[in-house]
Amino acid sequence: MKEFDLIGRYFSNGGYKRKDVIIGIGDDCAVTKVPENQQLAVTTDTLVGGVHFLSDAPAKSVAYKTVAVNLSDLAAMGAEPAWISLSLSLPEVKEDWLAEFVDGLYELTQYYSVQLIGGDTVKGPMSMTITAQGFIPPGSELTRSGANPGDWVYVTGTLGDAGAGLDILQNTLEVKGEARDVLINRHYFPTPRVAVGTALRRIATSCIDISDGLLSDLNHILTASGCGANIHVDRLPLSRAITSAVDNDTAIEYALSAGDDYELIFTVSEEQKGNLETSLASTNVKATCIGQLSGHSSNLSLFKGEKPYTPKRDKGYEHNF
Amino acid sequence: MKEFDLIGRYFSNGGYKRKDVIIGIGDDCAVTKVPENQQLAVTTDTLVGGVHFLSDAPAKSVAYKTVAVNLSDLAAMGAEPAWISLSLSLPEVKEDWLAEFVDGLYELTQYYSVQLIGGDTVKGPMSMTITAQGFIPPGSELTRSGANPGDWVYVTGTLGDAGAGLDILQNTLEVKGEARDVLINRHYFPTPRVAVGTALRRIATSCIDISDGLLSDLNHILTASGCGANIHVDRLPLSRAITSAVDNDTAIEYALSAGDDYELIFTVSEEQKGNLETSLASTNVKATCIGQLSGHSSNLSLFKGEKPYTPKRDKGYEHNF
Repeated sequence: MKEFDLIGRYFSNGGYKRKDVIIGIGDDCAVTKVPENQQLAVTTDTLVGGVHFLSDAPAKSVAYKTVAVNLSDLAAMGAEPAWISLSLSLPEVKEDWLAEFVDGLYELTQYYSVQLIGGDTVKGPMSMTITAQGFIPPGSELTRSGANPGDWVYVTGTLGDAGAGLDILQNTLEVKGEARDVLINRHYFPTPRVAVGTALRRIATSCIDISDGLLSDLNHILTASGCGANIHVDRLPLSRAITSAVDNDTAIEYALSAGDDYELIFTVSEEQKGNLETSLASTNVKATCIGQLSGHSSNLSLFKGEKPYTPKRDKGYEHNF
Repeated sequence: MKEFDLIGRYFSNGGYKRKDVIIGIGDDCAVTKVPENQQLAVTTDTLVGGVHFLSDAPAKSVAYKTVAVNLSDLAAMGAEPAWISLSLSLPEVKEDWLAEFVDGLYELTQYYSVQLIGGDTVKGPMSMTITAQGFIPPGSELTRSGANPGDWVYVTGTLGDAGAGLDILQNTLEVKGEARDVLINRHYFPTPRVAVGTALRRIATSCIDISDGLLSDLNHILTASGCGANIHVDRLPLSRAITSAVDNDTAIEYALSAGDDYELIFTVSEEQKGNLETSLASTNVKATCIGQLSGHSSNLSLFKGEKPYTPKRDKGYEHNF
């Protein structure tokens, strides 16, 4: 048995077991069963060491984040997660690192009842690709293209924390005490908004997750839906951690542009606002209305109070096709 | 738009279109529909530049091979291919290279009626991961574990050509003329045995594709099925190209151990031998019986004529989990 076959042993039990997995890890393919009357949602995201995560990031965070960004894509589509396949490229076999990676992977998959059904382990530069799959009833998928002028724009949770956490880790931002830990934690262990995604089915007119930053990702909705938006930066949801760590203007900049939050942006028609509150109540996640769509195609206007607001930076990461 | 978003444009039409793809490239997830009464087969393989393919391999070959090795896994399971997701990591954007890569990708996906439904493009060391999915009727999947003592062992096509082609490219084997082109071609453009895979449903008792080499991959069947095997090396199917290029003993060594052939190894009970011939007739692919399974668990014995044969090398590549 060769060195890299050994890696497979760390994953061979697949963690959480699902009844719809007929054959899991260990053959040429996994074999699964999609429930009747459900469509399949499929997403693939790759994280490269030194590009998408810090090269010295804890193994547990690397695993957690790779799973989370993929589940976040399923959430943004309104899908209920089911299975993941993992391709893991590593320059060398470090047993401690692998054990911690598997811990992070199984912690999140267990929580969301997701089974690892297969993958590949190769010797190469540190990088990991996950393909995640989930279920959506026909016609219930949340796309980027269904928004209409007049719809209200919401975001879940709080914005900017992960970006501030990254800057702390890179020593470009100095924060002490509990806020430091909270912000770093948000960078290392993002929470995919899975329950919100399914709760938004047939309520939201469009949805996307925030990987590149609020402005960048909201623009994808505007382009796909042919709408504009008026966004009020003083309504952006900010955590106590970020407001205690930086001044309000800086917090707004993080919230607009830093990315990696994995919160959801979604739009809701006036008529569905009541249903939205009821539907989100069960998820224990707060959603904040930050503005409204306009008919001015792709025109994203920011306001602070009554005045137009110009963002100071427009940082964003390389993105999916 | 950032440099790596541009890459996505090369893939944005997804090539071949299938009716079971409801949403293709361009949203957070693809959305697809598995036909009623079909199970889903899922496989993931990663190819790293300089590890799984030569760093200077033509882009068309890299694309072709990445798709082919994944379709080969589907074939080994008896699945009919449907969709692929591609994650592409490249150190830089070279338009000529990308155009040729897309050509190779679409040539093969068009041929097998497979749609590219999504993926990711990232800046990083050259590597590509494909997750391929296909359909199998319940109970028809070909596993590694269903073989029984007394079953006959078959391989498709000819063995060893791809390994000889690689050695030619690496200047460790000198071959001239047409044979040189044939062998290099087999390395660069492997043929996944898709039609054979589906033809073997309910006929073969086990199946695997040859990625690491005949000995290494047959051993996976023996381990999973708890059988031994007696294999006759003088029955190994060898191409005219390889027998004209090297002596018979060397050709046998390539056939046993070189890998990357992406032919299928499968086992068939005595009772099903007649059905096998009928079933394979439509595929235009020859299968050769190279031996028989024994009850001696995991014991793989080689014979040349009546005498035991000891292979000179046991080369194999790093492998899946």
